[in-house]
Amino acid sequence: MKFASLKNGRDGTLIVVDKKLQHAVEVPGIAGSLLKAVENWSLVERKLKLVYGSINVSDWAAERINNMSADMKVQQRVVDVAVYQQHMKELSETLENGRVTNTFELNVSELAAALPRAPQFVDGSAYLAHVERVRKARGAEMPASFKTDPLMYQAVSDGFLAPTEPIRMADEAWGIDFESEVGVVVDDVPMGVTSEEAARHIKLVLLINDVSLRNLIPDELAKGFGFLQGKPRSALSPVAVTPDELGDAWRDGKLHLPLITHLNSRLFGEPDAGVDMQFSFAQLIAHAAKTRPLAAGSIVGSGTVANQDESKGSSCLAEKRVLEIIKNGKATTQFMKFGDRVRIEMFDKSGASIFGAIEQTVEKYK
Amino acid sequence: MKFASLKNGRDGTLIVVDKKLQHAVEVPGIAGSLLKAVENWSLVERKLKLVYGSINVSDWAAERINNMSADMKVQQRVVDVAVYQQHMKELSETLENGRVTNTFELNVSELAAALPRAPQFVDGSAYLAHVERVRKARGAEMPASFKTDPLMYQAVSDGFLAPTEPIRMADEAWGIDFESEVGVVVDDVPMGVTSEEAARHIKLVLLINDVSLRNLIPDELAKGFGFLQGKPRSALSPVAVTPDELGDAWRDGKLHLPLITHLNSRLFGEPDAGVDMQFSFAQLIAHAAKTRPLAAGSIVGSGTVANQDESKGSSCLAEKRVLEIIKNGKATTQFMKFGDRVRIEMFDKSGASIFGAIEQTVEKYK
Repeated sequence: MKFASLKNGRDGTLIVVDKKLQHAVEVPGIAGSLLKAVENWSLVERKLKLVYGSINVSDWAAERINNMSADMKVQQRVVDVAVYQQHMKELSETLENGRVTNTFELNVSELAAALPRAPQFVDGSAYLAHVERVRKARGAEMPASFKTDPLMYQAVSDGFLAPTEPIRMADEAWGIDFESEVGVVVDDVPMGVTSEEAARHIKLVLLINDVSLRNLIPDELAKGFGFLQGKPRSALSPVAVTPDELGDAWRDGKLHLPLITHLNSRLFGEPDAGVDMQFSFAQLIAHAAKTRPLAAGSIVGSGTVANQDESKGSSCLAEKRVLEIIKNGKATTQFMKFGDRVRIEMFDKSGASIFGAIEQTVEKYK
Repeated sequence: MKFASLKNGRDGTLIVVDKKLQHAVEVPGIAGSLLKAVENWSLVERKLKLVYGSINVSDWAAERINNMSADMKVQQRVVDVAVYQQHMKELSETLENGRVTNTFELNVSELAAALPRAPQFVDGSAYLAHVERVRKARGAEMPASFKTDPLMYQAVSDGFLAPTEPIRMADEAWGIDFESEVGVVVDDVPMGVTSEEAARHIKLVLLINDVSLRNLIPDELAKGFGFLQGKPRSALSPVAVTPDELGDAWRDGKLHLPLITHLNSRLFGEPDAGVDMQFSFAQLIAHAAKTRPLAAGSIVGSGTVANQDESKGSSCLAEKRVLEIIKNGKATTQFMKFGDRVRIEMFDKSGASIFGAIEQTVEKYK
């Protein structure tokens, strides 16, 4: 299933989106927001599946009918309508509000972040190629423990930027950067969960632009308390999907597809999110939940996707600059300026966009 | 005004509590939860004031009548009832649900944290006596910049422990500690707010037990990404109050009263929260909001309250241990064991509890 949120208040309005990201429908009788859906997942999942099945059957039926010769239309329509009506029957038994009638065309500009706010966002740094490179630039070795003990920080989650919302910052000198990441949304995770158990709590997958202010980070980390000003609000993809949508690209708690980043319409990076990920999402969840439960709707991030294979490009400017420093002694790539645009997306093997695109321009705040 | 939350779902049910913390009333026609109230503060504040006025007038009237001679009762009752009825009249004009009739006795065991979950919790470390001592124990000087640039970290806020909820941890060896703090709840704060503007966004004040796992923290901070496993869920006081409830003890964006901590029924510390606080809450809010807005309901913590005057005791075990190390070369105070109990509260000048008490026992998890 695929979900998005219309802009509406702090939690948005949940919509169920078809596979092709073309049509959607509100489901007020099932859940008003995606957060409410995740908070009551075991109850609402079956109902949502019926809606999802219905809107996809409906699209599929319409397409087949359009492609058929006029002669065959009547006969085929009878079959499709029968399938559709069976879905509607189940649906009307399940939904308080009856039938799926009010589908509408999906318009990304009307969308909030897939999950407009989350109870929690913990962000890992599971791609050690990224960690090694960033440390090497400042002459620091990566401790061996980083291979067994995940790096993770508590991030801000009181509001996520919409997928096409500008990144508004007061000062270019803060060193504005993007970080292309994969994230998962969990239902309620008990404290002390094992990795094996944790895998079952992954309910949704989405993309993240973890906006970072590189020139604020060194002083902030030197104080010893982690990121605060250096990690402002992140953006989320238009759509969040259940893992089964990903087919065999979702295995071992990792998403095995390239994550594509464009900067000002030029390809910037296409590392595979399933390659060189040191810790699976299940392991990251277990790490986060060692001393506390995680509330339903919490997002666990992968960290900046990076492959050891440098020909795949990067998922953030900082890493590209590091590679330049290592090779040439100095960085020539600049951080983002007002007007610069980043686009982050992922395609399935047929070339279809899975989550829709995060596409953001940097703007001056105030 | 004083507010608490009955245990109910993830956000609790808002109740308005009288000054003496004896009676309360639900206000479903105004706001279902404290979070909803803070999110719509400018709209709901006036309505809540009418309820608050009413339940306090009612108590006040009852008390006066009890203290009067029988002869005077009839006459006085007429006056009180007139005052009460005027409040009720205003109230019935304002509330959807009419009158305040269903007051009930406050029972702390039925309470969730005053704010059961918050969109965000950022915790400062504004008492430099605490910072200096903790650093001195490991032979580190405090950088001069700490006097002008607040220490603050992004903390977990997806659920707070109820005021009497046990601190459940799997292992005593994690070094279980409390931290007695003051916190404020803000309404929506714009990015880049000044300290002067920030002061106006403080809507509620409460107490926090920032539970800390001391033996997990050194390795975690050494990784450079701040606290995660070392800072599990915190507990909040039973009651949150508007700043006007604090009278002249609330000035300059600080709370000028001793914060009292008992460990296993013995006084452990009573430092004044208004003394040696290097940054006001307004300054802490401005620091947090430099690169992002803060959503209504965000909590900004003071950090462990500590005075330069060591005779005032401490607000956490770590600091007491540090003072022992500095004086005697080794710490004799142990971290909390299963069965240990901490009590945190604050009294006004008449000796009345302002927020109710956080009182928690450490228990083995599972």
